[in-house]
Amino acid sequence: MKNLKLVAARPDCQRSVINVQGIEVGKDLVVIAGPCSVETERQTIETAVAVKRAGANMLRGGAFKPRTSPYAFQGLGLKGLKILDKAKKETGLPIVTEVVDTRDVSWVGEYADVLQIGARNMQNFSLLREVGKSGKPILLKRGMYSTLEEWLNCAEYILAEGNPNVILCERGIRTFETYTRNTLDLSMVPAVHHESHLPIIIDPSHGTGIREMIEPMSLAALMAGADGLEIEVHIDPPNALSDKEQQLTFQQFEDLMVKLRKARAFILGLGSADAPIASESEGKGTRAGKGKTARAGEEPHPFSDAVD
Amino acid sequence: MKNLKLVAARPDCQRSVINVQGIEVGKDLVVIAGPCSVETERQTIETAVAVKRAGANMLRGGAFKPRTSPYAFQGLGLKGLKILDKAKKETGLPIVTEVVDTRDVSWVGEYADVLQIGARNMQNFSLLREVGKSGKPILLKRGMYSTLEEWLNCAEYILAEGNPNVILCERGIRTFETYTRNTLDLSMVPAVHHESHLPIIIDPSHGTGIREMIEPMSLAALMAGADGLEIEVHIDPPNALSDKEQQLTFQQFEDLMVKLRKARAFILGLGSADAPIASESEGKGTRAGKGKTARAGEEPHPFSDAVD
Amino acid sequence: MKNLKLVAARPDCQRSVINVQGIEVGKDLVVIAGPCSVETERQTIETAVAVKRAGANMLRGGAFKPRTSPYAFQGLGLKGLKILDKAKKETGLPIVTEVVDTRDVSWVGEYADVLQIGARNMQNFSLLREVGKSGKPILLKRGMYSTLEEWLNCAEYILAEGNPNVILCERGIRTFETYTRNTLDLSMVPAVHHESHLPIIIDPSHGTGIREMIEPMSLAALMAGADGLEIEVHIDPPNALSDKEQQLTFQQFEDLMVKLRKARAFILGLGSADAPIASESEGKGTRAGKGKTARAGEEPHPFSDAVD
Amino acid sequence: MKNLKLVAARPDCQRSVINVQGIEVGKDLVVIAGPCSVETERQTIETAVAVKRAGANMLRGGAFKPRTSPYAFQGLGLKGLKILDKAKKETGLPIVTEVVDTRDVSWVGEYADVLQIGARNMQNFSLLREVGKSGKPILLKRGMYSTLEEWLNCAEYILAEGNPNVILCERGIRTFETYTRNTLDLSMVPAVHHESHLPIIIDPSHGTGIREMIEPMSLAALMAGADGLEIEVHIDPPNALSDKEQQLTFQQFEDLMVKLRKARAFILGLGSADAPIASESEGKGTRAGKGKTARAGEEPHPFSDAVD
Repeated sequence: MKNLKLVAARPDCQRSVINVQGIEVGKDLVVIAGPCSVETERQTIETAVAVKRAGANMLRGGAFKPRTSPYAFQGLGLKGLKILDKAKKETGLPIVTEVVDTRDVSWVGEYADVLQIGARNMQNFSLLREVGKSGKPILLKRGMYSTLEEWLNCAEYILAEGNPNVILCERGIRTFETYTRNTLDLSMVPAVHHESHLPIIIDPSHGTGIREMIEPMSLAALMAGADGLEIEVHIDPPNALSDKEQQLTFQQFEDLMVKLRKARAFILGLGSADAPIASESEGKGTRAGKGKTARAGEEPHPFSDAVD
Repeated sequence: MKNLKLVAARPDCQRSVINVQGIEVGKDLVVIAGPCSVETERQTIETAVAVKRAGANMLRGGAFKPRTSPYAFQGLGLKGLKILDKAKKETGLPIVTEVVDTRDVSWVGEYADVLQIGARNMQNFSLLREVGKSGKPILLKRGMYSTLEEWLNCAEYILAEGNPNVILCERGIRTFETYTRNTLDLSMVPAVHHESHLPIIIDPSHGTGIREMIEPMSLAALMAGADGLEIEVHIDPPNALSDKEQQLTFQQFEDLMVKLRKARAFILGLGSADAPIASESEGKGTRAGKGKTARAGEEPHPFSDAVD
Repeated sequence: MKNLKLVAARPDCQRSVINVQGIEVGKDLVVIAGPCSVETERQTIETAVAVKRAGANMLRGGAFKPRTSPYAFQGLGLKGLKILDKAKKETGLPIVTEVVDTRDVSWVGEYADVLQIGARNMQNFSLLREVGKSGKPILLKRGMYSTLEEWLNCAEYILAEGNPNVILCERGIRTFETYTRNTLDLSMVPAVHHESHLPIIIDPSHGTGIREMIEPMSLAALMAGADGLEIEVHIDPPNALSDKEQQLTFQQFEDLMVKLRKARAFILGLGSADAPIASESEGKGTRAGKGKTARAGEEPHPFSDAVD
Repeated sequence: MKNLKLVAARPDCQRSVINVQGIEVGKDLVVIAGPCSVETERQTIETAVAVKRAGANMLRGGAFKPRTSPYAFQGLGLKGLKILDKAKKETGLPIVTEVVDTRDVSWVGEYADVLQIGARNMQNFSLLREVGKSGKPILLKRGMYSTLEEWLNCAEYILAEGNPNVILCERGIRTFETYTRNTLDLSMVPAVHHESHLPIIIDPSHGTGIREMIEPMSLAALMAGADGLEIEVHIDPPNALSDKEQQLTFQQFEDLMVKLRKARAFILGLGSADAPIASESEGKGTRAGKGKTARAGEEPHPFSDAVD
């Protein structure tokens, strides 16, 4: 992929590890959990305590919510950030929260341990530059209609400002399928690992929009080699102010974490040290060549001839 | 989903098991492997022997190849079917091969144990009716731009002719992503299991178009609950007459099968009897309701408000 | 575009004219009108008389209707063709009707003056070859998710069988927009005229799915250089057995024809002889080069950098 | 469409007219022309003089250019705005230029007569609110993957801040077609006119990405009822710093303007006062009903059953 100077996979295939308050994203399996939106202090803190107890590594929660309609709930803003701060003090979990305006990066950054760039702002280049200057860990979600190349170029915007701490997050793309909210593209996991040194996590909540699909897709994501997950958990999903269909209950999240730990252990034991990642890294030299041939060589794009 | 009389999930949540020469699709983990196209007798038989030895359950191989250009290799036709027949006699593997014309269903059916309907013919309703009349097991691939509802309606065409033996196969959909050949939509596994009693397998070869992605996506597919896999294997991938970028070598396939068996055992031991399928079935009552709400209720389609 | 031997634009830029019972498609402005489905003799003949009187050149009407569900109205089959035959005897209008099965090409061809290949069968290559052998004029609709290159390759299948009489028909593609039934891609008119010698007509009925949009989009299609239109007209749209939202009443069609004739005259008088077609032909040499640069050169596909 | 309080079509069908320095957008036919990017003073001023002479109503020119790669030309910024200011003083043409950062709205607004929101920022809700507060006329481009409903909701964000001066601009959406840069969706013209009182213009430069297509698609846009056009014109297209394939030469633009004026006169004379707009307004009551039925009634989205 052209123009990727800082984001491209390294010749020695070494992956970046992003340190968030001692949590090593890209090395540990990282689970970021919490409500879609910060709604009240009680809702947020109880959720934080619950996900911490179940084994989550970070707390997510939106204080600024981009919504299709100007009349929908837009988040609590500063009040929401202060609630997240209390939840952090209570549980020790680092905070992941979205920033949507260049003017907010600095002060939101005082509350956030990881600044999230949402799907709709993936190509908000001013915002990318500003979070690049902040130096903070950034969770960069893939745009709803974006290609891998466009996505990695957005990470390049951040790294070009001197901030190497970028975590990529696949959250589903818009397709013609309407059964699921988006189409979760798990093939981005091996693709990102092949083209870049940055870690990639999966958001099965937005990726499917259906509560019951979060478990199978989370397990599948791990198996595909994902470095972590971002999962929405709510104290009372049916009464959530946003995304009520896709948030797990505390019990569901706890059950999922048990399975994720088993799956992680299984994956580490599969084949050599850390397959499937290892086998993939071994094949890097070969795959790089093939990948290039497949994409840029005789068949310039995948629509040309799909046989079966 | 409206209009699904025969294909819809049963009230008792019981899944169909399709019997192919004693192989129980929907119960056993089924791996269909073999070349994209039947090219020569030696190529096909050696591949059949190799995939059989590695543990494959059925042999795939195309004798009729739908191609974008009329001047591309179109398959060996009858000669190809005769080669598949020899490979079957040699190995005992049932044959999965595509049929593309209503006039061919009867005689191709004499060679095939499973008739495959390719993605481009998913909505060739005349062909669906004809294979419905044949009574043979049918592997129905999802169309490149099709929704789950359209796909299940195509299965309904087959069942409506009195043929209940339909295996669904997700093989990737067309999206804006050009890095992969298609976008493999693993969320169709829990979706099909929720909406229908039919088994679903995954084709990671067409689904990604990239050899090195077949292993991680196959493992992920199993973890998502897939009933099986269809994988392209070639004696000499770089010199294949079609799909050279996405066919595994014998050794790669053998290594993959070792991991698939381990993963299958892990999945069977995860949680209760057959999680994640079990937990999903338990939630059937609940999810049906939620699914309906999510899709047809206040938010009529998934584009309405994607928050993160 | 590679592999286009017979369909590609000619060095002298001469366009093909397809003769249908004396109507010269590619030279005259051609309007094909009639009901979505043949429902009854009265409905069809009255419609034929009405569209003839308003100035239509050919009668459309489906006797075989591909439907998403096997339980939806599938057309009258042979009975429908006999009704079309009566309508032809009554009005003298040539008949355009769809064929969906290789086994039907021969006998449907005895009733049809133009065989239509529907969007879902665009890549039914067996059917393309069979209609190619028939020698009859073919109306080849663009697939719902197909690129220009795939579409022209399908026309190549027909011409490769010795049948040069192909009329292309843009009928809208599937996009994320749900307001319209499909997204009518009028840019295919200059694109086809640039890349091929075949005529192209526009189907605003399926292209929009909304009755009130047919007039503005028909006028726009003419202005973009279309060689004709295919428009659904029904004796009683609210009670049509299919596509009730997109069929014009007799009066609406008559009013539209008046405007189309004025628009045609305006276009012929605009600038030189037949602008905008003329100005485009003049630039052929230049545009071929540019087109190639734009697509296959430094910017391999249009997603790379959309500035505004 | 739900939630549209200020943007929805008025009961009396009256359309808004946006006044830009005396130019009445929504009443006059408005042509905005100029270079993709402001590159030099000479390039910009000579282009402004040329497009003014040919009959353009406003000058476009980008000083801030959102680019996929951080290493591509990003525009001249303030220097570019000062050049635009000189061009305005020279020609009297109002300036249309893009703003990409909430922090820039105020000072860019001192140079711009119309602030443009680019496709990638359509759902940058902070930016929408900020330009809403500015009170200036806003040109709101449709996002590359956005539905009409999402687009109109973005306009609602601006109007909800007290700024009624919004001009919508269709500039093509991303589809699977790679021949054109985007797919120009002209059906948005009657759709916007039906659902909203806001004017809509068409950008055939980004919509096609191919110079030779600008003329036919501009004429088609007018015929579909567009209130204006935004067209890229460059003093030396092959050496443009961005979008070189889609900018017209001065001579091409002049020729186009001659045809546009003739087409405008023809359209005004077609049928009654201002057909096709008039006929559409007459049908408003009816179409609203039908539109609703088609979309939200028995067939919830357009994928359910496309017959031809």
